[in-house]
Amino acid sequence: MTTSTTPTDDRSTDAGPHVVFLTAAKGVERSELTGPWEALRAAGVRTSLATPDGATVATVEGDLEPAGDVPADLALADVDAADVDLLVLPGGTVNADTLRLEADAVALVRAVAASGAPVAAICHAPWLLVESDLVRGKDVTSYPSLRTDVTNAGGTWHDDAPVVCRKGGRTLVTARNPDDVPAFSAAILELLGHRDA
Amino acid sequence: MTTSTTPTDDRSTDAGPHVVFLTAAKGVERSELTGPWEALRAAGVRTSLATPDGATVATVEGDLEPAGDVPADLALADVDAADVDLLVLPGGTVNADTLRLEADAVALVRAVAASGAPVAAICHAPWLLVESDLVRGKDVTSYPSLRTDVTNAGGTWHDDAPVVCRKGGRTLVTARNPDDVPAFSAAILELLGHRDA
Repeated sequence: MTTSTTPTDDRSTDAGPHVVFLTAAKGVERSELTGPWEALRAAGVRTSLATPDGATVATVEGDLEPAGDVPADLALADVDAADVDLLVLPGGTVNADTLRLEADAVALVRAVAASGAPVAAICHAPWLLVESDLVRGKDVTSYPSLRTDVTNAGGTWHDDAPVVCRKGGRTLVTARNPDDVPAFSAAILELLGHRDA
Repeated sequence: MTTSTTPTDDRSTDAGPHVVFLTAAKGVERSELTGPWEALRAAGVRTSLATPDGATVATVEGDLEPAGDVPADLALADVDAADVDLLVLPGGTVNADTLRLEADAVALVRAVAASGAPVAAICHAPWLLVESDLVRGKDVTSYPSLRTDVTNAGGTWHDDAPVVCRKGGRTLVTARNPDDVPAFSAAILELLGHRDA
């Protein structure tokens, strides 16, 4: 995918794992959405983008610069946690701050984690993990501004990426910022069984 | 002050309490800066706006819409906590998320609180109070997305405004969103001795 296309172009219909991306409709850091999306699509992984009401996502770069719209595939209410093999939570400060107030978003994060499927969150998205009480006893990273919130929620914060933690039978993949997107994407692909990612 | 002027216009030189506003250089919710500023200026209170390096503030409305620049008066390094009679922390998601990473900003918040002067924070700015470990054992409000972070930091969160808490010998004034600006401003003025505010 180039920057002139959108994640929904050339949708793969492969069978195999289904990876759902979940964001708010605004304030989504574009490269943290499109980077992992492109990496998964290139590996033939089936992907869907969900937003609270299925609305198009207004992305940003550096939190405040408009970076174009990305169409969503699904409304949150239409996502069945049992059909999610891995959940990806892209960052963006306003995105993550907005999404953590959506009770259905927090419920989906919890349901996916409870099913045993990995939850991957980058940059400010670990606030969703805090809101879902999933970081307690876990090794986690995030954008550094969340360090105190993650620590206060019972997590152990690391300045490293990707951080993959399987403690307690739930798998979290976390990363710090857009520069970590390649490592974040590779960790996701490895969890999906693409060992040579 | 109208929306076509800036907070530094018509600076008062009154003696009396000195109120310092502290923000990052971007992502500041305009009405949460200009609203309390105008209310204090109208009451003849001496005010200064400090940013990490004294740079002009790029304000926003609704977190993402550009809402004009506001010049700062001081760099953070030039603020003497002993000369601050009350510290105001305006909101804006990106502002607060940025400022909590500035060690000198967190140090100033702590120093002002330790001096016995009130610290007033609205909307997302209570993240600075979390980062400064000032909410432990206190009654606090904020934008609702911070509720979990405030609670995990040891505060008791209230859906009310203004919340004025003097427990532990440190005074915090908190409010939830731009709609609370009049009540937030009145509480600040009352703490400064303007009982009829």
